[in-house]
Amino acid sequence: MSGELEGRLINGKVSLGPAALPELYEQGYFGRPRGRGLELSLVEAAYLLDRSRIRILWEEEDLDFPALFQRASSLEKGFEFRYVVYKDLRERGYYVQPGRPDFRVYPRGGHPGKSPAEFYVLVISERMPLPLQEIMQPVKMAGQMRKRLMLAIVDEESDITFYEAREKSMSGLMEEVEAGGQATLLEDRVVLWEAEASQKLHEMGFYGKPVGERLQLSLVESAYLLEKDLVSLVDRSGEELDPESFAARARQIETDFDLKFKVYRDMREKRLVVKTGFKFGSHFRVYKQMHGSGKVPHSDYLVHTLPADHIFLPPVLSRAVRLAHSVRKSMIFAYPPEGEGPQVSYLEIKRLKP
Amino acid sequence: MSGELEGRLINGKVSLGPAALPELYEQGYFGRPRGRGLELSLVEAAYLLDRSRIRILWEEEDLDFPALFQRASSLEKGFEFRYVVYKDLRERGYYVQPGRPDFRVYPRGGHPGKSPAEFYVLVISERMPLPLQEIMQPVKMAGQMRKRLMLAIVDEESDITFYEAREKSMSGLMEEVEAGGQATLLEDRVVLWEAEASQKLHEMGFYGKPVGERLQLSLVESAYLLEKDLVSLVDRSGEELDPESFAARARQIETDFDLKFKVYRDMREKRLVVKTGFKFGSHFRVYKQMHGSGKVPHSDYLVHTLPADHIFLPPVLSRAVRLAHSVRKSMIFAYPPEGEGPQVSYLEIKRLKP
Repeated sequence: MSGELEGRLINGKVSLGPAALPELYEQGYFGRPRGRGLELSLVEAAYLLDRSRIRILWEEEDLDFPALFQRASSLEKGFEFRYVVYKDLRERGYYVQPGRPDFRVYPRGGHPGKSPAEFYVLVISERMPLPLQEIMQPVKMAGQMRKRLMLAIVDEESDITFYEAREKSMSGLMEEVEAGGQATLLEDRVVLWEAEASQKLHEMGFYGKPVGERLQLSLVESAYLLEKDLVSLVDRSGEELDPESFAARARQIETDFDLKFKVYRDMREKRLVVKTGFKFGSHFRVYKQMHGSGKVPHSDYLVHTLPADHIFLPPVLSRAVRLAHSVRKSMIFAYPPEGEGPQVSYLEIKRLKP
Repeated sequence: MSGELEGRLINGKVSLGPAALPELYEQGYFGRPRGRGLELSLVEAAYLLDRSRIRILWEEEDLDFPALFQRASSLEKGFEFRYVVYKDLRERGYYVQPGRPDFRVYPRGGHPGKSPAEFYVLVISERMPLPLQEIMQPVKMAGQMRKRLMLAIVDEESDITFYEAREKSMSGLMEEVEAGGQATLLEDRVVLWEAEASQKLHEMGFYGKPVGERLQLSLVESAYLLEKDLVSLVDRSGEELDPESFAARARQIETDFDLKFKVYRDMREKRLVVKTGFKFGSHFRVYKQMHGSGKVPHSDYLVHTLPADHIFLPPVLSRAVRLAHSVRKSMIFAYPPEGEGPQVSYLEIKRLKP
């Protein structure tokens, strides 16, 4: 019977003899052929042991599943999470191989040697703080190799949530807007008093919020319109504000003003309509296009800005993506480069149901 | 015409003569009678000025709306937000009076002198960090006065989101569970190996997650079962762990373990079923009851634990409540008292559509 296949745990791998090749590799694509035998990773070995397909010897001792599991989790950091994800994907009928960053997954109907892998998989523990750049690195690697990147986040009850992460190129369809009038910076927002200018900016560019015949502008909107010479700005004492002096005030009101403004400007210059995303807990909701002053269409994206050295907490990431999905929007994280360059990067993260 | 009513701006209030009483107070419950005249708050005065119902004099100068608005926003911190909320509620047809914390709102069909106010209103700017205790104080005050507390959060585009905040008493209907076996603390989770004990704990108490015939337990579940003498625990080297030594390990894995465990224990002792809320970005999802091992019912609450001195960022609060609603659950924030006492408080926050 197949339970007779015997492997030896050496240097964090399990080595089996030639009999394992037809039985495990050719039938299930477990392990990698090495010399005339087969080498299994610890995750593969634990999976096959739990199914009684192999026995595992370690220094003459026959390891049962708890013994192997405890040993493997001492040998490999994150073994428990990788095991949970490997098992889940295998049980869904996918062929899975170890590989960078954690696994490679083959498309349905495909397998090693027949077709290229479809996904790279990054396994993440709910409890581990996750630097943005540790997602971006495999995102870029996957992009270069024409793979998709799957994030598999394991929660404290070993349930897995799957996400796909990819770079997103953003662009909209809005036309340029004509000039407006003079606005006043009040306590923490800006009011444009003239009715005609207010109407123009709102109807043609979807700037601000009409309050009666006036227009309330947010700080990023005001900074953008000021920079493009579409409005002029004074403070409550009547002193004129230029882009630099306005930015200095705005920074005092909103600590992440510079970060938000860089991303706001980039998206407006890409001809998108950008409005506050407060109700969705994100910085912006973003539309590709809006028509006339009548009904507002469904917005396309929720965009949250982050510094390039941001560190995600997986529960917070999960909440943002879940919320975006619940309102049928796409969740996008935007970050400017470290240093001064103008370029903004966009990372889209969405749920995946493998 | 009514535009002839003339008020004087003195000491941050606007005073009008006796003619204002029938016209403004008796017909719309604006202001408070003072002597033989009427006194308006700045918010009320700005609202009536914008509708040309009054004129406002300040040191012989006739203030137009922009002039009054700029003056008022210099005199009163938060004037702009209060104005936006006051205007919105008035335009929805409610009678609104200034009062602690910001406004009192009368029920539809009610008004001052006829019926008690229904809501106290706390006005919040999206940008202002909001200490939990600054919500709890008016929540408790409202509770004592048999009012409901309305939070009105104003975003950067002056859109308002309304919430109701109240203390919540939690209780469930679960029976006690029988004893289980021995479990092992691995890297950051616990596995109970015996099939029978695993099945019992899962089917009767909905503890853990079955993985094959084993049961994976989270850290808080393990700590609770250990404290109640329902399982025993060892680490990977076989050393026995008591509640104190286990808590010490758990704290290293999860920095807010103590906080989470206090709340977990309180809810379990209140006969609720408590599971991870990771997929919803909260600490726990909570059920009043579960039946048998078959299908899992819809959970009732999302519970997130906070320290008593927590400071909310309104966008994060908004996201949590919005997400809970999108999955038809109630969002509850739980916090233990500062210091050592066992008592846990629960704050429910839900969307309100006035």
